[in-house]
Amino acid sequence: METLDGLSILRQETDLLWMCLSAFLVFLMQAGFALVEAGFTRTKNVVNILMKNISDFLFGTLAYFFLGFSLMYGPSLIAGLGPGMPAVATALIDVQGKPDSWNYGFFLFQAVFCGTAATIASGAMAERTRFPAYLIASVCISGFIYPVFGSLSWNSLFDSTNQGLLVRLGFIDFAGSTVVHAIGGWLALAGALVLGPRLGKYREDGKVSPIFGHNLSLATIGVFLLWFGWFGFNPGSTTSVGKGSFAIVAVMTALASATGGMAALFVSWLLFKRPDITMVLNGVLAGLVAITAPCYDVDTTGALIIGAVAGVLVVFSVIFFDLIRVDDPVGAISVHGVCGLWGTLAVGLFASPEFGSGTAGLFYGGGMALLGVQALGSAIAFVWALGAGLLLMLGLKYTVGLRVSREEEIEGLDIIEHGNEAYPEKFS
Amino acid sequence: METLDGLSILRQETDLLWMCLSAFLVFLMQAGFALVEAGFTRTKNVVNILMKNISDFLFGTLAYFFLGFSLMYGPSLIAGLGPGMPAVATALIDVQGKPDSWNYGFFLFQAVFCGTAATIASGAMAERTRFPAYLIASVCISGFIYPVFGSLSWNSLFDSTNQGLLVRLGFIDFAGSTVVHAIGGWLALAGALVLGPRLGKYREDGKVSPIFGHNLSLATIGVFLLWFGWFGFNPGSTTSVGKGSFAIVAVMTALASATGGMAALFVSWLLFKRPDITMVLNGVLAGLVAITAPCYDVDTTGALIIGAVAGVLVVFSVIFFDLIRVDDPVGAISVHGVCGLWGTLAVGLFASPEFGSGTAGLFYGGGMALLGVQALGSAIAFVWALGAGLLLMLGLKYTVGLRVSREEEIEGLDIIEHGNEAYPEKFS
Amino acid sequence: METLDGLSILRQETDLLWMCLSAFLVFLMQAGFALVEAGFTRTKNVVNILMKNISDFLFGTLAYFFLGFSLMYGPSLIAGLGPGMPAVATALIDVQGKPDSWNYGFFLFQAVFCGTAATIASGAMAERTRFPAYLIASVCISGFIYPVFGSLSWNSLFDSTNQGLLVRLGFIDFAGSTVVHAIGGWLALAGALVLGPRLGKYREDGKVSPIFGHNLSLATIGVFLLWFGWFGFNPGSTTSVGKGSFAIVAVMTALASATGGMAALFVSWLLFKRPDITMVLNGVLAGLVAITAPCYDVDTTGALIIGAVAGVLVVFSVIFFDLIRVDDPVGAISVHGVCGLWGTLAVGLFASPEFGSGTAGLFYGGGMALLGVQALGSAIAFVWALGAGLLLMLGLKYTVGLRVSREEEIEGLDIIEHGNEAYPEKFS
Repeated sequence: METLDGLSILRQETDLLWMCLSAFLVFLMQAGFALVEAGFTRTKNVVNILMKNISDFLFGTLAYFFLGFSLMYGPSLIAGLGPGMPAVATALIDVQGKPDSWNYGFFLFQAVFCGTAATIASGAMAERTRFPAYLIASVCISGFIYPVFGSLSWNSLFDSTNQGLLVRLGFIDFAGSTVVHAIGGWLALAGALVLGPRLGKYREDGKVSPIFGHNLSLATIGVFLLWFGWFGFNPGSTTSVGKGSFAIVAVMTALASATGGMAALFVSWLLFKRPDITMVLNGVLAGLVAITAPCYDVDTTGALIIGAVAGVLVVFSVIFFDLIRVDDPVGAISVHGVCGLWGTLAVGLFASPEFGSGTAGLFYGGGMALLGVQALGSAIAFVWALGAGLLLMLGLKYTVGLRVSREEEIEGLDIIEHGNEAYPEKFS
Repeated sequence: METLDGLSILRQETDLLWMCLSAFLVFLMQAGFALVEAGFTRTKNVVNILMKNISDFLFGTLAYFFLGFSLMYGPSLIAGLGPGMPAVATALIDVQGKPDSWNYGFFLFQAVFCGTAATIASGAMAERTRFPAYLIASVCISGFIYPVFGSLSWNSLFDSTNQGLLVRLGFIDFAGSTVVHAIGGWLALAGALVLGPRLGKYREDGKVSPIFGHNLSLATIGVFLLWFGWFGFNPGSTTSVGKGSFAIVAVMTALASATGGMAALFVSWLLFKRPDITMVLNGVLAGLVAITAPCYDVDTTGALIIGAVAGVLVVFSVIFFDLIRVDDPVGAISVHGVCGLWGTLAVGLFASPEFGSGTAGLFYGGGMALLGVQALGSAIAFVWALGAGLLLMLGLKYTVGLRVSREEEIEGLDIIEHGNEAYPEKFS
Repeated sequence: METLDGLSILRQETDLLWMCLSAFLVFLMQAGFALVEAGFTRTKNVVNILMKNISDFLFGTLAYFFLGFSLMYGPSLIAGLGPGMPAVATALIDVQGKPDSWNYGFFLFQAVFCGTAATIASGAMAERTRFPAYLIASVCISGFIYPVFGSLSWNSLFDSTNQGLLVRLGFIDFAGSTVVHAIGGWLALAGALVLGPRLGKYREDGKVSPIFGHNLSLATIGVFLLWFGWFGFNPGSTTSVGKGSFAIVAVMTALASATGGMAALFVSWLLFKRPDITMVLNGVLAGLVAITAPCYDVDTTGALIIGAVAGVLVVFSVIFFDLIRVDDPVGAISVHGVCGLWGTLAVGLFASPEFGSGTAGLFYGGGMALLGVQALGSAIAFVWALGAGLLLMLGLKYTVGLRVSREEEIEGLDIIEHGNEAYPEKFS
């Protein structure tokens, strides 16, 4: 007995260690987003976009701590008040009958996921969004919009009588192609729609004037940090070392990122006559976003295909949004929205009964049912995030103001909003 | 029996894995410091500050290996000479009755902490310190100044009859707000005092001419790497997965960093009318430094308050040191010294009897005793580090020379000390 | 029984966790290589070198998945076809009688090592290699050249009747000084030889015109990421937490990197009158490369010496290759080839019978036998990698073309091959 107890305690601690290490990796994705977005924007707006990304973690973590976590994984908010913890979060953390420390680890893991979702919008809204408005948006996303949909899809942990709607329907989004990425992507779409394009991007003669990011080395560092962090994001979503399934998930993640990047490389080569680094970087991210939902349930063939399709999709999606004049400086809507949608649907196509949860997708004899559920979940996510996002952005537009003035946009946000220059010596 | 033995071995190995993984994360903080300091200095001194930060690890690790580790965790230095290990370090590593490999892991974990302490001074001394003098200072800090105070506070591991003075008094500095950060900060103060300000910083008419760092993107990468590494620094200081307390420590660390950054954001907004990115970056670090001592013993309310206070403190401290004309290019004295002091005292205020070591601070009914011990430890650290630092820096000033010539300072240290330019094409 | 089973399962899962975490760290080394190489090249070729490094992972992972892994760890390729896995890889992954997930983890760990080997050549070939030719080379290296030698040295895992030649002879290359680094280094040499030097590097009067890299901050970030990742590369090569030997390996790795960097610092100071940052960065890498083979089998004295010698060697080697007019923009041949060779031979000198595998090198009474085997393995690696590399590069030269045109080299590869500029605003 004593031995078994000791063993089960060590197992719990090892699971918790893995969950926390994954949370640290996912935390580093904040740096990845910050650098990708900074690299893809112009020098005059670099400090501003860095500040927005940093603030997403500062404000987002606190909003999630005080409100979002309870909304997402409640509802037993009436239970006792733990030692020194704000009421709602403590209540949640204390009522679950698991060891205390596990609850803290789980909070951290969820909080960094929330930070990821919140930060996606900043890229699509770059170079023209007022800083105070952005902060309010970030708090609303982390504290409310993200956790509400998260609760539908993922809240099955603590209370079997109170599972999320999509959990009960069998919706599969293992690590968040929809819960995190598509939600973030559709919020980004809402932001870009309400803001309108940057000055000079779409010319009156119908042509697009590309606006180049100032530093592709920085963007590349960012993508590598995101890639690295994704090995916490996807494999870590096992939240346990049991059966070593994290290793299988890690391989699927690596394979999809490889085919995603490669597909984007070849497609851009075909379309533009040259392999374009911005497309390759977004192709890698597209593969990663797409494999996030199915990484636990597909085999390697599925992973390779899902990544490759995402890499093709992202290039055409970027072109498409420019055609309809939705200005997204970093491609966030295409990477996270479109490829998050694709990855979620792909579960319905490629889920293999020999992997993960044992569910079969369409190509493995599973019929249309799972695909239907995946489509339903995706539709709800789209309606919720775009709807709530439009309300939020329009609300901000007509109150505190969402977009900077024409003068500020031309001069750059760094000086006027922050009094900082990213590289002061270059302008001296 | 056999089973229990196997279980206890696996537990030891898992503890050691966690300690080593944490050491790797803390190692990465060297990169973080290097980039923060490079970003906050001018182009002409970038190679020099990078070299100093790299050298801190090179020279510091060896000084700690050959001397510091033994000073800090001795004293049984007479024991047998292990296989191929320099006498002192081997003796220490072999006498402890724990598995050999644990001792190696513990050495690595301690060595990267030492590297952190040593590297703090380089920021405050940036843009005017001679490279050879800096190397000597770095060796003295790693091999002697840091381990002596460390021994007072942390040496309770191997020999109960020979515990550090502050250990016996009940001084609590879980992961080193004082042992690492305040010691580093007060050494930074000593360096800045002896060096004097950079040319042109303080004008004759009493005004301050701000000297802007050359690359805020670089500084931001640095802060993110420090932030990431801190999840090894604080949670890793459990040096064990037992009870999963690392997860609780990780949450406290994240919360304090969030309130630290947010407080600095709002304070700089109020004071300067604009949210300043350098203040936000330092606010995040301030929150991290402050929570480093109390992270194991406070609850979330404590963590949130400690971080927020640190974020306010750091802004006013930076202003204060400019007022008294102590020129600290990166804010190291304020971040590591002042906020390290604050965090150490905060243990006496906010330690919760329901967390960590079960000690109660003032606000939880513990009376003034703990606060007194924390103040005493902080005072000893201040006197020791500032005193030894002043002696060291003055000694260097009057022997090998501490400060570069006026001509070299104007031209920049990179060309003259290293024959390198950080960005050669920009000057061609 | 039940208890023992549970314990051995948890041990397997913990081993696998460690192997996967190490794989993630090694993955990050791709970012390290990308940044070092980008930092050490000129602005006009930055996008190109970033693209090559990214592509190494994209194409290399897939080539290793579809071919290399089977070549290296086969040969039982006839076994059954697993769920959805391409035939060869699946066959390999399914026949081994270990838990499935372990095989996936092992594949990932091996794949990131392969990516490292492939990417080494890109540095020596920088600033003048056609992108399509490079992609083909990268696929051939990952899919064939690397795994063939890898099989000789490391294939002892799954089939005792089919061990690699060098395994049977007792060749020791714990983490790949030869298997990964020297193979990569000699391929780099082949590439540099066939390509010839960059325009303007070697003048007609016999002098060398140094071509400076554009960004030493970037190169420094890269070295720090490589350094950090090496704590997965070497300690992770235990692929198990058993006996905690990863901690010992980690200390040896840290010590050798410290003496490597320090030796290069002092040697460059002596030779050039100034401590040169590019030499220090390469010295750190040289120490890391050299300790990679012996890290499991030497004591701390051995590690300190091995690193120091590597740090001296790398400086003279860089000078030597310039003397014989082999143009290696980043020093890859010296760091990975020469110091990989040194580290491999050093096992024969410094292996301590009290560490690791218990084999004794020359200085510990082991005689010349081990040194002979190490030399033989190194010679085979040199002949194989240089020979296959020359064939490959010459084949590319006379088919698709290996080197860009004179005009393109002068204008830069970024615009012509990719249509991108790394820093567009600087040229506007």
